[in-house]
Amino acid sequence: MNESNAPEEGRKMTKVHRHTFRLTAAQCNAQRELSVSGLVQHVIELATEHADLLDCGFERLQSDGMLWVLSRLAFEMKRMPRLNDRYVISTWIENFNRHFSQRNFDIRTEDGEVLGYARSIWVAIDRESRRPANLEGIAAIAVTVTDRACPIEPPRKLRMERDVAASVRNYTFKVSDIDFNRHVNSGRYVELMLNSLSLGDFDENYVARFDIDYKLESHFGDVATVAYTRSADGVVLSNIVVEGREACICRYELRSRSEQA
Amino acid sequence: MNESNAPEEGRKMTKVHRHTFRLTAAQCNAQRELSVSGLVQHVIELATEHADLLDCGFERLQSDGMLWVLSRLAFEMKRMPRLNDRYVISTWIENFNRHFSQRNFDIRTEDGEVLGYARSIWVAIDRESRRPANLEGIAAIAVTVTDRACPIEPPRKLRMERDVAASVRNYTFKVSDIDFNRHVNSGRYVELMLNSLSLGDFDENYVARFDIDYKLESHFGDVATVAYTRSADGVVLSNIVVEGREACICRYELRSRSEQA
Repeated sequence: MNESNAPEEGRKMTKVHRHTFRLTAAQCNAQRELSVSGLVQHVIELATEHADLLDCGFERLQSDGMLWVLSRLAFEMKRMPRLNDRYVISTWIENFNRHFSQRNFDIRTEDGEVLGYARSIWVAIDRESRRPANLEGIAAIAVTVTDRACPIEPPRKLRMERDVAASVRNYTFKVSDIDFNRHVNSGRYVELMLNSLSLGDFDENYVARFDIDYKLESHFGDVATVAYTRSADGVVLSNIVVEGREACICRYELRSRSEQA
Repeated sequence: MNESNAPEEGRKMTKVHRHTFRLTAAQCNAQRELSVSGLVQHVIELATEHADLLDCGFERLQSDGMLWVLSRLAFEMKRMPRLNDRYVISTWIENFNRHFSQRNFDIRTEDGEVLGYARSIWVAIDRESRRPANLEGIAAIAVTVTDRACPIEPPRKLRMERDVAASVRNYTFKVSDIDFNRHVNSGRYVELMLNSLSLGDFDENYVARFDIDYKLESHFGDVATVAYTRSADGVVLSNIVVEGREACICRYELRSRSEQA
């Protein structure tokens, strides 16, 4: 739950937007931690709030016939926040041009210890054509760009390996998978791809790095194929394909909890 | 997100516990409202918080080898909170004895207009035997019982109709379905049962009343059968059966949005 919101500067051009959260029992996963999809939801929510504060959020883009879409995301976590932990997520814009906005995050304990970092790339699409739109109309937010440190690699280009046989299951998108934009929820893709593994896999391992590339929107009733491969060193590649086209693809690195901080 | 928490009285024996929420875009369902499972999660979260404040929460019961379990829940809503709405949920104890605790809720706009009411029944189980436990050890909370109004019928006894052919699908519980207690998440049962219907059903109708009876815990990898029947007057009965035993059953009344406030 959101417990405080203390922007670093004035309302209009707050360069760094942050929130303090507390992980309640009801929000925990089976390992009593923030889940990967929960972190993705936080990233989306904070990006949305910050954009609203900068007057380039949902309402503003809607008035220009556009829509923000999360395109790529990567994070590296030393560990996830745990049951009853208070944690602080900060977000800021690293780069902005007419094609996309690069937005970074850090996740810290209340004492300021870094738990991890995230990088995300956002594009605007035209609400009618669903094609990339031009962000020049909100170029004013370029003054909020800041070089605050985010020492992780950018989101990677991902591709399923052709020479490795993938494990596959089918899934049809249902009522609870659909979000307020009438597409499949971004966090739900993450859940579906992580659901290929077992509970034991996540009891024994944590996700040290996660990359996702959102490519196409999916809708209620679409029939999807969820595929994954897993290498001997714990790297999982997974994608979701709808009618022969890749809707999204992710890669994550599992590392033994015995090596965790 | 939780934005404030103003107990009516002192910390120890707060009779009415409440929270103000704001429904963000990321939390909305496809109808841009709080989802039924979202309301169930709120109920669980507020009950947990209030029990913690009364020193009869998770930690206390754990020290006695017990665990709170939501047994039954019913709500009636005039309408759900909508995108960007601020809303206030209050909870209090209507009845308490050594077998169970009856906890009620109201959901209001910030201006105090009632959106709906909920009633819930909680039991304690022994952590080892998973059998009902005795609540006499926390009888002190009986002094917080209050007769604040909750003008809806108690949770109903539910049974699938034997003479109506049910529509059935199978589902295997996965990583993202499991909560911090290592069972299937109570909200997830709700999603699975509502997922039998189409997006159009919820575009055209709202859930005016909802009843659920949680009967057995389910676990990772369990293979479930989700069945439902729907009457001509919009009453849906649905249950989830694992290995021949009913894990939970719900009933909900769909009413046309054209009749909604």
